[in-house]
Amino acid sequence: MATKYNKVKQAIKSSILDGTFQPHQKINSESELMKQFDVSRHTVRLAIGDLVTQGWLYRKQGAGTFCSEKTDETIQQVGLNQKNIAIVATYISDYIFPSIIRGAESYLSKQGYHVSLFSTNNDHEIEKKVLEKILTQQYDGVIVEPTKSAVHNPNINYYLNLERLNIPYIMINAYYDELEPLSIVVDDEKGGYLQTEHLIELGHTNIVGIFKSDDIQGSKRMKGYVKAHRHHQVAIKPNNIITYDSKEKATKPVNDLYNILTNSIEVPTAIVCYNDELAIKLLDVLREKNLQVPEDISVVGYDDSFLANVSEVKLTTVDHPKSDMGIKAAEVILELIHQQQGERQNKRDKVTSVVFDPKLVIRSSTQSVSNKIVNQELLFE
Amino acid sequence: MATKYNKVKQAIKSSILDGTFQPHQKINSESELMKQFDVSRHTVRLAIGDLVTQGWLYRKQGAGTFCSEKTDETIQQVGLNQKNIAIVATYISDYIFPSIIRGAESYLSKQGYHVSLFSTNNDHEIEKKVLEKILTQQYDGVIVEPTKSAVHNPNINYYLNLERLNIPYIMINAYYDELEPLSIVVDDEKGGYLQTEHLIELGHTNIVGIFKSDDIQGSKRMKGYVKAHRHHQVAIKPNNIITYDSKEKATKPVNDLYNILTNSIEVPTAIVCYNDELAIKLLDVLREKNLQVPEDISVVGYDDSFLANVSEVKLTTVDHPKSDMGIKAAEVILELIHQQQGERQNKRDKVTSVVFDPKLVIRSSTQSVSNKIVNQELLFE
Repeated sequence: MATKYNKVKQAIKSSILDGTFQPHQKINSESELMKQFDVSRHTVRLAIGDLVTQGWLYRKQGAGTFCSEKTDETIQQVGLNQKNIAIVATYISDYIFPSIIRGAESYLSKQGYHVSLFSTNNDHEIEKKVLEKILTQQYDGVIVEPTKSAVHNPNINYYLNLERLNIPYIMINAYYDELEPLSIVVDDEKGGYLQTEHLIELGHTNIVGIFKSDDIQGSKRMKGYVKAHRHHQVAIKPNNIITYDSKEKATKPVNDLYNILTNSIEVPTAIVCYNDELAIKLLDVLREKNLQVPEDISVVGYDDSFLANVSEVKLTTVDHPKSDMGIKAAEVILELIHQQQGERQNKRDKVTSVVFDPKLVIRSSTQSVSNKIVNQELLFE
Repeated sequence: MATKYNKVKQAIKSSILDGTFQPHQKINSESELMKQFDVSRHTVRLAIGDLVTQGWLYRKQGAGTFCSEKTDETIQQVGLNQKNIAIVATYISDYIFPSIIRGAESYLSKQGYHVSLFSTNNDHEIEKKVLEKILTQQYDGVIVEPTKSAVHNPNINYYLNLERLNIPYIMINAYYDELEPLSIVVDDEKGGYLQTEHLIELGHTNIVGIFKSDDIQGSKRMKGYVKAHRHHQVAIKPNNIITYDSKEKATKPVNDLYNILTNSIEVPTAIVCYNDELAIKLLDVLREKNLQVPEDISVVGYDDSFLANVSEVKLTTVDHPKSDMGIKAAEVILELIHQQQGERQNKRDKVTSVVFDPKLVIRSSTQSVSNKIVNQELLFE
């Protein structure tokens, strides 16, 4: 019973939050709701009763139940006193995400704010549910890492609803371009350029690049990879570019690299990886093919994560600000909240987006091509 | 038999063109090919024999058949004497595309070039086949309208192969950002801004925006729509944004608009359309809901196509250069070809991308909101 009752309540709230029910719009009749959710009249009445008490709906004798006019205001007033910040990330417990979140959380808790964490698993459906929850439960501000930022976002109305309710939000790592939100990102194109240029300067000309295709970070890093080749007048072998989306993450990069290493006459001498996580996974493929890193093949990661240092080969990689990004995000969202509560005008004027400049971290997974030949010559002497 | 033989031949060529077989790489054995294509040894030998004669493959006694080293060179030499240009567009016979193509064709034929037209129907699989054909048949240059430009392109290796073979290409209307190609586009963000600002200046505040989500033009126009609202401090009703992809084109915009018009308490007073084609389709929905254009609802199109003038209501719209874009594309591709044939160095230095500045064309599908109220007052006097 409790579940059914909550389901009806939540569904009506969702329709209000996503804008389906506008203020003073009549909601579905009791009979319609009974049919729609396959529940008893008693359940429907309980759900509606609760929403009326909470100020979401109002009843008009003989006319039906209507969406309340005061919804926005009610929500907003509740929101402002909570000292609650929501952080929405694609993943929260893996890889570099705990560091980013820890940075934000430590800063926010010092300022007396409570942080709630939500993970979308890089899935638009989950992002939608998370945003609904955030709109229902009221937060003073939201820090979002966009889900599948390189793909059209079907949840844009939820972000516009945050704006309508004056709940500030900022985006980290990437952003939905149409919304032009304040954002804290790394210059990923430059990062991809640095990865590739490092290898070209070491004499490599046959460089595989493996990039994620549904996040904007992947397409920017790939752009940097292409740019570095062009700038140094090195032709890209067309089959040297491998792309994969979130769902193909576990298999495609591994299989495609395996095929390239098996079928190429000129085996590539270097690999630019989307991130360290991928680089570590690919070390297994290289081991299987009896290729030594960096003697036979150089590998560059991205993010300078803990993984770069735990593997048997210490990875050359590009740094990611991690906890500094989290702290910066926390600072910016608090500035926005304070401006929101004080002077509401021109709130977008003072606070600005931040772009971190990436730097190459050189370790032992890369070496010059000529070294390899020298080694072989020594071997045959 | 003939079909089977061509199938084997084409498949081997494709593997060479997409980079799977590199120069001097051994191709599959006769037995493997027989198994792979379920054909007789005779068929395989005929296919390979042809490809050897044409210089794609060479045989090494007792060792097998190999991909020829001279492929690139052979292809290139054939290419340069053809005076052939390929134009690849999402659609070629509908809407504004015939004008664009006519512009390019008339310019190119005056210069003694022959034009071949290919349509991808905005489908990546078809684009792939078209690019394969272009790589096989040799063209001096290619003008491409990208397929699903807002989505990751799986055919990027074919474009890199064009570069490898020194076949210049340019993109029109949109471009794949990772490749940073020379491009001839319209400033679509500004176009979307102009559409929306025009309505806001007429007093509209409840404006539906309907945009295509898989072409970059749609997301840029939507960005302009959001920007105009922000700039004029008009809040966007979250449900007022409708997006659709190529496959949903025929149904989603119509259904979603119908739902908004049916369920909203405050019926929108204006619609920003992705293009004129969509605007015309939506006039039917408005007619069905007994809404007069522009008295009850204003409509803005995009492209200033012939459709803007043939409907019963002449559309306010944004101009598209159409045949001027085609002419410009023809000029640029010829410059690239000439530079290619003369001085090969620094070929990207002189020719530059072009961005056309959009302008609003005001006709009779838009009017100020207050007019409507005045009209009604007059009616009730």
